[in-house]
Amino acid sequence: MQDELIRARAAARIANSLQRTDKDRALLAMGEHIHLAAGAILEANVRDLERARATGEPTHRLDRLRLDESRMKAMVEGLHQVMALSDPVGEVMSAWTQPNGLHMEQIRVPFGVIGIIYEARPNVTVDAAGLTVKTGNAVVLRGGKEAFETNLALTAALRDGLEQAGLPPDLVIMLSDTDRRSVDALIRARTLVDLVIPRGGASLIRHVVEHATVPIIETGVGNCHVYVDAQANLEMALDILINAKTQRPSVCNAAETLLVHTSVADAFLPKSLRQLATLGVELRLDERSLSIVQHDAPDIVRANSVSPMVTVATAEDYATEFLALILAVKIVESLDEAIDHIGRYGTGHSEAIVTEDDQAAREFLTRVDAAAVYHNASTRFTDGFEFGFGAEIGISTQKLHARGPMGLRELTSYKYLIRGAGQIRS
Amino acid sequence: MQDELIRARAAARIANSLQRTDKDRALLAMGEHIHLAAGAILEANVRDLERARATGEPTHRLDRLRLDESRMKAMVEGLHQVMALSDPVGEVMSAWTQPNGLHMEQIRVPFGVIGIIYEARPNVTVDAAGLTVKTGNAVVLRGGKEAFETNLALTAALRDGLEQAGLPPDLVIMLSDTDRRSVDALIRARTLVDLVIPRGGASLIRHVVEHATVPIIETGVGNCHVYVDAQANLEMALDILINAKTQRPSVCNAAETLLVHTSVADAFLPKSLRQLATLGVELRLDERSLSIVQHDAPDIVRANSVSPMVTVATAEDYATEFLALILAVKIVESLDEAIDHIGRYGTGHSEAIVTEDDQAAREFLTRVDAAAVYHNASTRFTDGFEFGFGAEIGISTQKLHARGPMGLRELTSYKYLIRGAGQIRS
Repeated sequence: MQDELIRARAAARIANSLQRTDKDRALLAMGEHIHLAAGAILEANVRDLERARATGEPTHRLDRLRLDESRMKAMVEGLHQVMALSDPVGEVMSAWTQPNGLHMEQIRVPFGVIGIIYEARPNVTVDAAGLTVKTGNAVVLRGGKEAFETNLALTAALRDGLEQAGLPPDLVIMLSDTDRRSVDALIRARTLVDLVIPRGGASLIRHVVEHATVPIIETGVGNCHVYVDAQANLEMALDILINAKTQRPSVCNAAETLLVHTSVADAFLPKSLRQLATLGVELRLDERSLSIVQHDAPDIVRANSVSPMVTVATAEDYATEFLALILAVKIVESLDEAIDHIGRYGTGHSEAIVTEDDQAAREFLTRVDAAAVYHNASTRFTDGFEFGFGAEIGISTQKLHARGPMGLRELTSYKYLIRGAGQIRS
Repeated sequence: MQDELIRARAAARIANSLQRTDKDRALLAMGEHIHLAAGAILEANVRDLERARATGEPTHRLDRLRLDESRMKAMVEGLHQVMALSDPVGEVMSAWTQPNGLHMEQIRVPFGVIGIIYEARPNVTVDAAGLTVKTGNAVVLRGGKEAFETNLALTAALRDGLEQAGLPPDLVIMLSDTDRRSVDALIRARTLVDLVIPRGGASLIRHVVEHATVPIIETGVGNCHVYVDAQANLEMALDILINAKTQRPSVCNAAETLLVHTSVADAFLPKSLRQLATLGVELRLDERSLSIVQHDAPDIVRANSVSPMVTVATAEDYATEFLALILAVKIVESLDEAIDHIGRYGTGHSEAIVTEDDQAAREFLTRVDAAAVYHNASTRFTDGFEFGFGAEIGISTQKLHARGPMGLRELTSYKYLIRGAGQIRS
């Protein structure tokens, strides 16, 4: 594996000074070669699927693993979209001249070698390669075991494309080991790897945080809240809540907890919780919400006595990213209490306030410490495409370097170029 | 210690939304209280010095530890300088409206709680507190054992100043433990600490990199090169080399290795190495340089037969940050070889080319992967004040988040504020 990383480093040195046209030509060729190798890629995918089925993988994981014509087409289109984006490398972030005549320039540069650790979905292989090639980085991919043959076939095609475009194929390297040790080797390869982005479940992220010595960007854990303020437009609040909770509950920007100001709890909760229950959402209610619901919407409490739709919320519920059709609910006395609750349980991902009160909105936006803070909009918009970045390598939940959706710019570092005429320091 | 960190977190929550005027008022009061407590601070410093002397600390470390009237004055002036700088918090980094009407704003925000680990110099206590208060962060300081009483007296004065200005004194906390365990607790305090900046020797940095789970910024290790190109103005090259090597050899932006293009080696080396030897610089020469010197400047080889001024360079010499009056020297065949050598041995800090050839300069500036790359200037300029930042918390040698000198801006993160009118995702 050391050898694979050394090859990536050598390729990164070359990619460091490529022009946009070179990189875009490579992206086009990478897409063409995926098209040319479609047969081999789909066959490899069938073998991965058969093996996964034999080992009893659940249906939703088989579905994530499966490639077909339309998913192949989407991957190639993704490369074309990245081609169309402007290249951040070489952008002058700032420039000035010091009194002593030194001319200073701060310019964006590639990181060098970026490691990406991910799980089953094979499209990440192509997306990540496209974004890193566009930004002049080499990428070392460590995909999931289930998708190994598919990823290998995809990587072979991507490397053929790079070669055809005259770029080093080692800009895209798929690690041949898929065990935990390969993760550990990657996240501890200081001097060879400049950055690792783990994309996966909480246990992968925890492992990487604990053992990495290479700089990392944490992604994806989102315990997100919707706060319905005293001055909320309650119809808008219901639309936003339903969207944030149910439109795609398995993703990190879905809402997990509803906070409701006490003054609108009676007006808002019975109707909204009944509607959520109708949509199949399990409810974990604090005692006051529960008593409102028992009084005003007893039907949803009774609905399922065997597998109850409504239970009493615990502190653990408030701390949990359900990633499922489950919603925790709490009534708060004030905006302050809502902000405190989010400070205690939130993961710094996406938080929303629904209110017509500009002062309350400003307070919430300023004081809530999260990557994306919304006023009168759904948390589901935290996404590189919805932000207009045209691409996304992940959503950062740390504060160092990048926060929220990461596009091309977030895959670059910078350096200072200083031009003088013999200046020395006195 | 957990308790100290929880207090810092609570203070950071308040500082998060402070205005510049509040923070500047606090900086002024912090300076006044250092002035008021000058007697107690100097007495504490005398006790630290006595203890350090008794345990046999070397003179240069005693000197770093010592406070006097003029150093106290400089610390207070440092606070006043930070007051005069503009506040990066709240700066709009970008703003746009999405086609669906969502208004997006990316704004600078404080990190929250920043840990700073440093060694003997007490002025770091005041500098770090000034920079973090100015940027709305809380700081947890873990200073060196030798300076403990001094740091405690300084921190008490800083906290009195905060209190007088109506800000939470817990914005500045000095850890009461000075053992290694307190470092480990700080760098593993996820959720309580947002960022740790270690400032110190290579062994401290290594320990922090190995054990941290909190995001960190590596600082300060600088194996810097001066490359004298085929087309260099040799007089300028000599001035730059002497400045980079000898003006302050103990700091990270001092040069450690001279690379000389083969075509100017005969013309450049004898005179320049003789001058360096005169200035007391020990030389570690590759064989070709050595033979040139033996032929054209035999006096400096003979000069000290007991403690030789000139020896043959090893690979380890090229990899060493001497931080002393020692220079490794190597003749290279080409610009490529110079860039490769720097790629192999450099630490990504500061690198310089001396040349009149614009093409060579451009190539060097583009391809050398370091925080600061110089054309015709000394590496010694890599410094927050010399860059015009008005302040410096350290020099980053990593590529994530901040690279090179870190001023106020580098002590901030950002977040996205999104304002809508009920938008949901379809």
